[in-house]
Amino acid sequence: MEIDFNSAAEMLKNCKSAYILIHQSPDGDCIGAGTALYYILRGMGKKARVICSDTIPKRYDFMHEEYAEEEFEPELIIAADVADEKLLGKYKEVYGGKVDLCIDHHISNTGYAKNTLVRPDASAACEVVYELIKILNVDIDDKLTKCIYTGIATDTGCFKYENTTARCHEIVAELKRISDVNFAWINRIMFDVKSRGRLKMESMAVDSMEHFLDGKCTMISITMEMLEKMDVDASELEGIAGIPLQVEGVEVGVTIKQRDEDSYKISMRSANDANVSEICSLLGGGGHIKAAGCLLHGSLEDVKKQIIEAVAKGLGLC
Amino acid sequence: MEIDFNSAAEMLKNCKSAYILIHQSPDGDCIGAGTALYYILRGMGKKARVICSDTIPKRYDFMHEEYAEEEFEPELIIAADVADEKLLGKYKEVYGGKVDLCIDHHISNTGYAKNTLVRPDASAACEVVYELIKILNVDIDDKLTKCIYTGIATDTGCFKYENTTARCHEIVAELKRISDVNFAWINRIMFDVKSRGRLKMESMAVDSMEHFLDGKCTMISITMEMLEKMDVDASELEGIAGIPLQVEGVEVGVTIKQRDEDSYKISMRSANDANVSEICSLLGGGGHIKAAGCLLHGSLEDVKKQIIEAVAKGLGLC
Repeated sequence: MEIDFNSAAEMLKNCKSAYILIHQSPDGDCIGAGTALYYILRGMGKKARVICSDTIPKRYDFMHEEYAEEEFEPELIIAADVADEKLLGKYKEVYGGKVDLCIDHHISNTGYAKNTLVRPDASAACEVVYELIKILNVDIDDKLTKCIYTGIATDTGCFKYENTTARCHEIVAELKRISDVNFAWINRIMFDVKSRGRLKMESMAVDSMEHFLDGKCTMISITMEMLEKMDVDASELEGIAGIPLQVEGVEVGVTIKQRDEDSYKISMRSANDANVSEICSLLGGGGHIKAAGCLLHGSLEDVKKQIIEAVAKGLGLC
Repeated sequence: MEIDFNSAAEMLKNCKSAYILIHQSPDGDCIGAGTALYYILRGMGKKARVICSDTIPKRYDFMHEEYAEEEFEPELIIAADVADEKLLGKYKEVYGGKVDLCIDHHISNTGYAKNTLVRPDASAACEVVYELIKILNVDIDDKLTKCIYTGIATDTGCFKYENTTARCHEIVAELKRISDVNFAWINRIMFDVKSRGRLKMESMAVDSMEHFLDGKCTMISITMEMLEKMDVDASELEGIAGIPLQVEGVEVGVTIKQRDEDSYKISMRSANDANVSEICSLLGGGGHIKAAGCLLHGSLEDVKKQIIEAVAKGLGLC
């Protein structure tokens, strides 16, 4: 059942204890939303616990110094920023079908919870939690400020992406008016600091860069040999598909990752109007208009040729 | 003379024509502030012209499609975002001592103008211009929105730096409430898109990276030979000193740029509490707490040794 802000606030007010589930591969928004709910409930004298399928990365430590690990029989099971039960990871088996209240901002929310507060117009789950804080009239201290800010900043790419709304700027302005939290430090940790392996990987990607179709198509290729030689872990490749889009003048950015001897995973991104879902469907793949992919076989040179031909067609160049 | 918002607004209202000077090596903030003033004055039926010592880079074209190039005898000479007359570049000789109104946000403003409206608490000159727009009760159309937004976003690093105030989030929220401008597209142009040369330079910088003092000191070195071999223009090196600070765990980031056979320009940046001004003074240089520099002589290996010794002292490691 879809519920409104007031009903969700009532559920929080009326419970005595709650487990708060966040999604696997946790990010700044689900950690921020889950931890904010944890502080809100504990501030109201209730028992609360945050539960995640994966270990929360150390760089988020500044948000949750005070987690209590005590186990108890929760009156309420809450999910924060979890669009689908599948995203509970190993806890899907334990809590599947048992979530009482889901607080989310994904339009794709599957409605798996008994009560769902979903606001697709919100930039982040933390924005939804902030509105609840206002209704509950909870005092916003530095701990809550860090959580809400980090969630909104993370999900909007530090206010860079299309989902950055007037409302999320207003919320951050309100937080900055009442708090001395070092927001710039949080931004540095979230957006600037990289592991050595990640920097090496980005450098490797740029070194492999090739430009085709008058600069409209930029391609990077990561072979198994390169990964081995550079001693870069495959986990450092996350988000690599965005790199070709950084190049001035590019319309379609292509990332080729070798899977085995003669097969390659292709990720395609569109900088402006090109429909890469259509282009990838020419190659037996698919996806979204701005982000799509396919799997190709042959030598690296063959694969590149196939891609350039399809991109040229997609851009109406042949 | 320092003047307030109302007096500056009166000057704009009462003039019939104005030249608007912006600083050399123009950036998003001075172009935004200057162009906004141009639109404001023309909207009030006055003649206006924007003047800059350097050509305005093409990537800012979206802000100023409609510049009029007509010359005239201006009643008012305005400087926007120009902290010092020197920054007028080749126009210092023409307009030095003749600026009637300076609109700025730099605490270092030298007070060279007859009337100065300077707000050091403002994140950007565009924030100051926005307050003037409100006082003048000018209608904020998409053209003005693009200018004000771009200036604030540029000077705050897309809301990432310490100078990002509650007020600048409020202003952006107000702009987003009344405009359909594609802010995400502006962010892409300002913060994500890079020239091929720039990407190559960054990759070269990362490839040269070395880590010392248990990872607390990261160093990149750019030699004349590297620049030549990579065919990278020296102008692409702007901002390179920030790259070593991206590395996880670093306290002091060092950039070594070769000047000639045996002399090297050193730029030092502090990630947290290290005082690089003090460290550079050990090496005969100086600067600010978080950004300083010096000039060293000898072989590259010698220079690195001198730096590591000074950084170790500065960090209290020896």
